[in-house]
Amino acid sequence: MSSIYQGRRLSLSLFGQSHSEAVGMTLDGLPAGIAVDPEALQVFLNRRAPGRNDWSTPRREEDRPEFICGLKDGYTCGAPLTALIRNRNTRGKDYARLKEVPRPGHADYTAQLRFRGYQDHEGGGHFSGRLTAPLCVAGGVLLQELERRGIGIRARITRLAGIADLSPFETPVDQKPFPVTDDGKAAAMLDAIAAAKREGDSVGGVIECVIDGLPGGYGAPMFDGIENQIARLAFAIPAVKGIEFGSGFSGCDLRGSENNDPFPLRPEHNNAGGILGGISTGMPIVFRLAVKPTPSIAKTQNSVNLRTGEPERLQIEGRHDPCIVPRAVPVVEAVAAIAVADLILEE
Amino acid sequence: MSSIYQGRRLSLSLFGQSHSEAVGMTLDGLPAGIAVDPEALQVFLNRRAPGRNDWSTPRREEDRPEFICGLKDGYTCGAPLTALIRNRNTRGKDYARLKEVPRPGHADYTAQLRFRGYQDHEGGGHFSGRLTAPLCVAGGVLLQELERRGIGIRARITRLAGIADLSPFETPVDQKPFPVTDDGKAAAMLDAIAAAKREGDSVGGVIECVIDGLPGGYGAPMFDGIENQIARLAFAIPAVKGIEFGSGFSGCDLRGSENNDPFPLRPEHNNAGGILGGISTGMPIVFRLAVKPTPSIAKTQNSVNLRTGEPERLQIEGRHDPCIVPRAVPVVEAVAAIAVADLILEE
Amino acid sequence: MSSIYQGRRLSLSLFGQSHSEAVGMTLDGLPAGIAVDPEALQVFLNRRAPGRNDWSTPRREEDRPEFICGLKDGYTCGAPLTALIRNRNTRGKDYARLKEVPRPGHADYTAQLRFRGYQDHEGGGHFSGRLTAPLCVAGGVLLQELERRGIGIRARITRLAGIADLSPFETPVDQKPFPVTDDGKAAAMLDAIAAAKREGDSVGGVIECVIDGLPGGYGAPMFDGIENQIARLAFAIPAVKGIEFGSGFSGCDLRGSENNDPFPLRPEHNNAGGILGGISTGMPIVFRLAVKPTPSIAKTQNSVNLRTGEPERLQIEGRHDPCIVPRAVPVVEAVAAIAVADLILEE
Amino acid sequence: MSSIYQGRRLSLSLFGQSHSEAVGMTLDGLPAGIAVDPEALQVFLNRRAPGRNDWSTPRREEDRPEFICGLKDGYTCGAPLTALIRNRNTRGKDYARLKEVPRPGHADYTAQLRFRGYQDHEGGGHFSGRLTAPLCVAGGVLLQELERRGIGIRARITRLAGIADLSPFETPVDQKPFPVTDDGKAAAMLDAIAAAKREGDSVGGVIECVIDGLPGGYGAPMFDGIENQIARLAFAIPAVKGIEFGSGFSGCDLRGSENNDPFPLRPEHNNAGGILGGISTGMPIVFRLAVKPTPSIAKTQNSVNLRTGEPERLQIEGRHDPCIVPRAVPVVEAVAAIAVADLILEE
Repeated sequence: MSSIYQGRRLSLSLFGQSHSEAVGMTLDGLPAGIAVDPEALQVFLNRRAPGRNDWSTPRREEDRPEFICGLKDGYTCGAPLTALIRNRNTRGKDYARLKEVPRPGHADYTAQLRFRGYQDHEGGGHFSGRLTAPLCVAGGVLLQELERRGIGIRARITRLAGIADLSPFETPVDQKPFPVTDDGKAAAMLDAIAAAKREGDSVGGVIECVIDGLPGGYGAPMFDGIENQIARLAFAIPAVKGIEFGSGFSGCDLRGSENNDPFPLRPEHNNAGGILGGISTGMPIVFRLAVKPTPSIAKTQNSVNLRTGEPERLQIEGRHDPCIVPRAVPVVEAVAAIAVADLILEE
Repeated sequence: MSSIYQGRRLSLSLFGQSHSEAVGMTLDGLPAGIAVDPEALQVFLNRRAPGRNDWSTPRREEDRPEFICGLKDGYTCGAPLTALIRNRNTRGKDYARLKEVPRPGHADYTAQLRFRGYQDHEGGGHFSGRLTAPLCVAGGVLLQELERRGIGIRARITRLAGIADLSPFETPVDQKPFPVTDDGKAAAMLDAIAAAKREGDSVGGVIECVIDGLPGGYGAPMFDGIENQIARLAFAIPAVKGIEFGSGFSGCDLRGSENNDPFPLRPEHNNAGGILGGISTGMPIVFRLAVKPTPSIAKTQNSVNLRTGEPERLQIEGRHDPCIVPRAVPVVEAVAAIAVADLILEE
Repeated sequence: MSSIYQGRRLSLSLFGQSHSEAVGMTLDGLPAGIAVDPEALQVFLNRRAPGRNDWSTPRREEDRPEFICGLKDGYTCGAPLTALIRNRNTRGKDYARLKEVPRPGHADYTAQLRFRGYQDHEGGGHFSGRLTAPLCVAGGVLLQELERRGIGIRARITRLAGIADLSPFETPVDQKPFPVTDDGKAAAMLDAIAAAKREGDSVGGVIECVIDGLPGGYGAPMFDGIENQIARLAFAIPAVKGIEFGSGFSGCDLRGSENNDPFPLRPEHNNAGGILGGISTGMPIVFRLAVKPTPSIAKTQNSVNLRTGEPERLQIEGRHDPCIVPRAVPVVEAVAAIAVADLILEE
Repeated sequence: MSSIYQGRRLSLSLFGQSHSEAVGMTLDGLPAGIAVDPEALQVFLNRRAPGRNDWSTPRREEDRPEFICGLKDGYTCGAPLTALIRNRNTRGKDYARLKEVPRPGHADYTAQLRFRGYQDHEGGGHFSGRLTAPLCVAGGVLLQELERRGIGIRARITRLAGIADLSPFETPVDQKPFPVTDDGKAAAMLDAIAAAKREGDSVGGVIECVIDGLPGGYGAPMFDGIENQIARLAFAIPAVKGIEFGSGFSGCDLRGSENNDPFPLRPEHNNAGGILGGISTGMPIVFRLAVKPTPSIAKTQNSVNLRTGEPERLQIEGRHDPCIVPRAVPVVEAVAAIAVADLILEE
């Protein structure tokens, strides 16, 4: 059941391993008649794709989704929508030793505990960040439809390597090469990434996402609230270790009189992040995700040999991102799109 | 679907409104033969119950669960376990005006949007914190069984009104009247609550929860990871606006070489919070929840009259907690117990 | 997970044992604003209630549902709807021996295998036909709403003790004391029941159900088709061992040219039973259920003592129906109502 | 949600249309370490594949599954298992007119109602029997594992064109070209198929399935009983219009004293079909499916033009089976395998 998200209306099944024939997704429950613009989708996917710049892994993949079914003449046809993305540029030999000597901060060790040696460990297998490519296919298709319905979703980096960009999020940053509002902060963040890379290390950060245009009254109390659903989806992104809505953790330091949003609601005072009682208020939905520093680093680390039980020094050789945060920005938008589409798309 | 949690093995249905005949829960999928100790359960429930001290609402409820079915001679019998907690001390008249003039920070407004006037608005209806009472019945039953299996769950306050307790969490604090490790910090926090109360205001905080004894290898990648499931449950607690695991948001400021936990794993270096790739590592599971300041405050607030559309000044009269955080501590333990039990209890 | 039905929009949780404090149900996902007429509901429940006539168990229960929550001023309020029916007239001692010596045709034996002695065996515990009382509460509430929306559901007996009533089902028979269209056949069936009763035996039969007024286009292909959902619900009724739609098993003997319903569709030629590809055609939905003869009979039967492994002759003493079929008729309507409401009620 | 089966442990997602790039399946929740023998799988799939004999459609497909992911060195690796079967021999032009003039007995009309013209109507689209190919991939993989665990599943035709084979089902018939126990009856059935084909018509039948070796104590009461789950899966097979367990519909004509299986249970007296209270008894699970006559017939039929509303005479030109029943036999085994695997395979 692990890799299927069952929402209220939509189901999303992700499949594939980093080095299997392909990774892919099946999106079920989509209404018929949703247009899919392949070029706009590709533009979206390219924001996540690797090998485009200094801060991402040199593994270069075309990331071109091949739609197997569910589309007819450019529109969804009511049947499940399945897309594959072929894995071409794989280098299995880099990973040969990792089955015995797990990488710190990765799922190598827990995969071994759970799958008892049968797991596909190459490139992280099913745990790889590569699975966010089909997640973005699903999200990208839904973003197109949401935009048609007046719902806009945009994410940006608000913190990286300890550098915070506190400027207001007034316009999307998806056109920028590095998705940060304040260009001065962006430069400092890029310096921090470059420094970490030079030292064989990595950095993490925080991504903020805003959903505009969702009317009030969507969602539910308790286990199916908007927060619950976004959180359930967001923790499917590898490296995400925290989520907060509206004023979030910093709101805990406020008094109730400060944290409560007075009526009538205004986007300028939206500590609730657009959600009260699990239900949308009509204000923008705002959430932030904590993305840990890439666990794959060039620096030598302490590990153990699972076969012998002896400690071993591990130097990871493959190709990796010194900072996963920029590439995760469209993934966060994808996750938000899935959550919102599940609320409003009526089959 | 909103008020049913469907886990892998367990399902939990919560029902009731603040002022309905009763609130209650049905726990389905429990193995037969689990002993339920009603006295230990009552001790657990009393930690959440209102009306016991200065910082909680004067609404006093016995919070005695009445088991309707699913128990036979003190053991679960394989059938769904249903318990009711009667609502006795209700004062509906306090809430008469709130249907028209929603309380800031509450779900009054979103309930109106979604249920179009049919909602039970008294005391927050189904959105009330009172629903955490049956949540604690479910969690309390499961905590007893987990303890028999060597799994211990404990939560505490680590931050309140901006006052942080950074001391290590070495021993449970459930015996303390105020669940904080450092007694000096506890005193300062209590002062802050008292000050807020005097001023007709409220404060929020952060609760940390630790799960000891869960072996490695439980959980799943993607949407059914331990983080996903705990998050999905945790956001069912009213007032929770954020969650982080292990080093969480502060881990984003670390380098990969600092944030990665070296092997062999040790509780002293557990930035992963016991979870890698959604699967338990064998280290303690550690998470923290952001609990917003109680939205119900005595201070006059700006609201609108939903009928007339005119602005109105609102003064909330009912009985409320100046700080919900201490009472939420056992609720967090309950949520953790449900998540863990769902991982390990095989029907 | 066993006792929760998760539909697309509605969830139904049934709980209770034959001799527990109460049996009950929680219906979640109901739209707010649905009126519940308690008197009409009681009339519906009385059709299922025991102790009213010669062919049902003398166990007499009031079967008055007590609504715990989810109703406000006679309308659903958007929160889960929970109702209890108290178990008053229980006679536990009748069942003392059955834990060791299972009744043929009952779940005593399989409950022992699955719950290892912890099951509540009295009166069949959670497996008892008594659980159809809360099922009828859920169905009865939904039937009222469906009727308001122009959807009518009616069931009748078409076969009993080998006696078939092949007359067309033109008008409901819920006003009749014995729900059969042809009064002559009804008399013969009643005779057969009386004969079986005299001989300490029991008889079975077939119930037909028709759903009028469901527009075309509801349902889905594959696993979520209307047939799948009705079947999944129908087999929750104890004693049901078969289901067929439209021409069903007898349609297998027809040629395609005979079995195909020509367009335009007409109720007179509805071999599809109103469903093609899992989706409603707009014609009446028609299905039939096989209800086995009541397994509880007075005649001595062969059993084994599960403790000793020795064969034993068993004479069941409790109070039982010589024929469960008439009382199952409203239960079938309830099941149909749940399936249809799940298709059309948008929260 | 329609094309995903969510069981207790396994999830199965089917995707594809008759004439899309491929049809396929994703099986999620499989334990790691299950061996997949591709040759044995192909033998199984060939029993369903078209174009092999007189009674099936001349559309010839290789039906070779291409495993995209989830396998590592011949064993499942814990990640979702996805397989595609390419659609090669498609002839879309045969179907051009059917979008306007729906075929009686098919889902053309209901697909139009539900998907408003966006559906892929070619070859029945997502409603096509071709989707049973990936269903058989899932079932075939599971059958291999069940066999290793001592569970055997076998199906046969017991009725076709009104000709019944009542002989006991003692040995599998999967090696026979026509899966019927009694060779004399088989010959008569084949004659009936040939006669129907000559007349441009089709015939239906009944398939019986037996599951041997499932221990007692699996399953659950109410909505998750074995009957419920098998039924939910079985109605995903196009053309299935009924299901019965054990003595089924004919058991309704028996007295309780005849229909009850005495203890100790014996396969010779298994009217319960191996299930009591939704839970396995340890006896063979026995069920029968009603398969309607193939709706695609060469004979001219009455239809309507959906665009003009005018009646039209329709002659279907494509390639079709005069009898789908023999090819459905392995599909029924596949469905049974999925249901049983979901009961016993612990991830």
